[in-house]
Amino acid sequence: VKTIRVGFLGLGVVGAELVNIIRANRERILSKYDIDIELGKIFVRDPDKKRSIDTEGLQLTTSAHDVIDDRDTDIICECVGGAGTEGTREYIIRAIKNGKSVVLSSKKVLALHGMEILELARSYDATVKFDATVGGGIPVAKIIKECFKGEEIKKVVGILNATSNFIYSKMEKEGLSFEAALKNAQELGYAENDPTEDIEGFDALYKAIILVMFSMKKWVDIKKVKMTPFSKISVRDMKYANELGYQIKPLVIAENKEKLVYRIGPCLIKDSHIAANTFNNYNMIVFEGSNSGILGFYGQGAGSKPTASAMFDDLVGMLIQQQEGGPDPVSSELYNGIHAVDELQEYENNLYWRISVENKIGKFAAIASILANNAVNMEKIIQKDEVEDRMGIVLLTSSVDPETMSRITGQFQDSGVKIHIVMPFLGE
Amino acid sequence: VKTIRVGFLGLGVVGAELVNIIRANRERILSKYDIDIELGKIFVRDPDKKRSIDTEGLQLTTSAHDVIDDRDTDIICECVGGAGTEGTREYIIRAIKNGKSVVLSSKKVLALHGMEILELARSYDATVKFDATVGGGIPVAKIIKECFKGEEIKKVVGILNATSNFIYSKMEKEGLSFEAALKNAQELGYAENDPTEDIEGFDALYKAIILVMFSMKKWVDIKKVKMTPFSKISVRDMKYANELGYQIKPLVIAENKEKLVYRIGPCLIKDSHIAANTFNNYNMIVFEGSNSGILGFYGQGAGSKPTASAMFDDLVGMLIQQQEGGPDPVSSELYNGIHAVDELQEYENNLYWRISVENKIGKFAAIASILANNAVNMEKIIQKDEVEDRMGIVLLTSSVDPETMSRITGQFQDSGVKIHIVMPFLGE
Repeated sequence: VKTIRVGFLGLGVVGAELVNIIRANRERILSKYDIDIELGKIFVRDPDKKRSIDTEGLQLTTSAHDVIDDRDTDIICECVGGAGTEGTREYIIRAIKNGKSVVLSSKKVLALHGMEILELARSYDATVKFDATVGGGIPVAKIIKECFKGEEIKKVVGILNATSNFIYSKMEKEGLSFEAALKNAQELGYAENDPTEDIEGFDALYKAIILVMFSMKKWVDIKKVKMTPFSKISVRDMKYANELGYQIKPLVIAENKEKLVYRIGPCLIKDSHIAANTFNNYNMIVFEGSNSGILGFYGQGAGSKPTASAMFDDLVGMLIQQQEGGPDPVSSELYNGIHAVDELQEYENNLYWRISVENKIGKFAAIASILANNAVNMEKIIQKDEVEDRMGIVLLTSSVDPETMSRITGQFQDSGVKIHIVMPFLGE
Repeated sequence: VKTIRVGFLGLGVVGAELVNIIRANRERILSKYDIDIELGKIFVRDPDKKRSIDTEGLQLTTSAHDVIDDRDTDIICECVGGAGTEGTREYIIRAIKNGKSVVLSSKKVLALHGMEILELARSYDATVKFDATVGGGIPVAKIIKECFKGEEIKKVVGILNATSNFIYSKMEKEGLSFEAALKNAQELGYAENDPTEDIEGFDALYKAIILVMFSMKKWVDIKKVKMTPFSKISVRDMKYANELGYQIKPLVIAENKEKLVYRIGPCLIKDSHIAANTFNNYNMIVFEGSNSGILGFYGQGAGSKPTASAMFDDLVGMLIQQQEGGPDPVSSELYNGIHAVDELQEYENNLYWRISVENKIGKFAAIASILANNAVNMEKIIQKDEVEDRMGIVLLTSSVDPETMSRITGQFQDSGVKIHIVMPFLGE
């Protein structure tokens, strides 16, 4: 019997659930792999806090270094919660330097310091697993490493932020405003007290950076990616989208072109799109591979059980690998070849517009001629409710490059046309 | 550099595509893993047949034994096409006994002889990979082995037969009859000349047996599973289902209860169900894990590229493992613990009924009272078009056990009510 001691950074809802799963499976792992998982030290900020699990027999400590520097600890499970903190980066780096392998859950740390952490892990022969950082219970990292060996991933489309998706679902199904839906999400524990990271799109951005890093081998400085906040959305647009056979989702799109393409923000997708039925706290990630074609993966994007379950899978993967000896050949396949890229390209796609005009004859014609003069193809123009004495209009058009967009914006302004929102829309 | 020689059984569309992918990736694999993939002998029935790839330099042979018995061949890729044949079983057994590892594509062989093949592989320390047998490009086996380590898989719902799903999509979207849609599928190469295995549900059954075998560790003799043929469906029911907010799909359902539950046949699922947007030749497999909750996987269920891509992933997995030495610990995890079970339980769920009655007053009341007397809850009763002087009626009811069903059938008959079709329906 080989004993593997597992230390913990954090014992919040995910950490506690992971302890539960380890306890429930200890016997089974022992008889199956001849490995005994021993619970090591557990770093918590407040040892007296009431927790959802029995802490009897757990070695709680208020010093992270007690865990990271513990000689007998082989693997560190990082469950600090939230997106992760600056402190987390230091803990991870120190753990790797101490020769430990790390099961990560903090997306922010990996997205911001991914290159540094992976380089370090490589030079110290440490394994870093990170399946819980993206897509909650969806085994994203395992899928990327196992399923695209002979091909290139050309595109990723994802609903990656469970909080925003929950809010969008509430807005669409119950007609709540964004603010009311957010409040509801907070009451149910689906949104933090400070929801900025989720609703402004940062959480989705971290996850996108991680997805692209491993699936396309390109890492980009997070500051360079432009976003449209997920909060920039109204029930009115949801309603209009539904009428047109679309849904609005908090979407991440990345394309592996000569220059990397990112789009993070609200986006319309057709009712028959495979990601359209992703509601509430669920996530969906759709890859496009050069041989496999479209592959989609759906699961709970948040929740302590699915996340802890993903971490447990990582942990057992490490145990098996340590038993076999040597670094994980598959994980190194994941790490290898990742390089930083600088140049990003603007995302271009068909567009949904909600605009308004003063209620005068000839406005339709003016709008149509401005678009035509700018070589923009108009698929649809629909008159909508009046808002504050102005006639609402919804347009579906072909894509518009940034230069043309600024020209159209100016011409619209001169004609008394106000643009309320512009979003891309995806077909099937 | 280590050379691994790969022999082929069959060089149809999948085999040819696999040769393409190997050729395209040989250099990359060599530089990445220091392994040279060498194409060995290839068994074909007709060496003069025109093929989609350049056969220059390929060692075609009309004897399968030339491939299986070749001492220098390490891995056999079985691409015999279709569901597989009795001959395929013998080839695989002989290959394993000859110490070779096998990448399987034939689902029928694995479903029918799974226990025998796995036992043999275990005793000969051979590796058998089979990801191409279920779900085409969806990495089902890899998902099962990697993602549910600390939990139980309670339920699987799948659209597993691409041919039937293509036919259903055509019927629903274009209003074609089953026969016309089948003809269309045949013209486009989505259905075989003899489509029996696909449209009667056998292909889906083989895949269900394989899914259940590995995810629930229970294997059942295929003859014991009852099926409702996928062909038993009409455009009329599709239309009614759509009106009610449902779609009809060629579905496989398996539940890991005390006795195993199987349901294979047409089934209604709600428009907002995650599998509802699975159209044409796509497949979707939805697992329910005790910790992960719902996990769904979507991809092309047929097509030479996705299938060959899945086989290539299996092949490279084997190369890495052979380089590391020893049997694949993860695959053995997949194999271990599988046992044959005898008892099956009837699937019970809410039901959609299409019935018809002579157009007389009081019929609604008669139907309602028969159901009520049998303690069946009626959610909906809707009058539909007349067919041959009879009034069509659609019912949605609670589940009905087999005994009650036969009683209701009798009472309906006595009251002049004809049952045209009964299907289960799933909510979100």
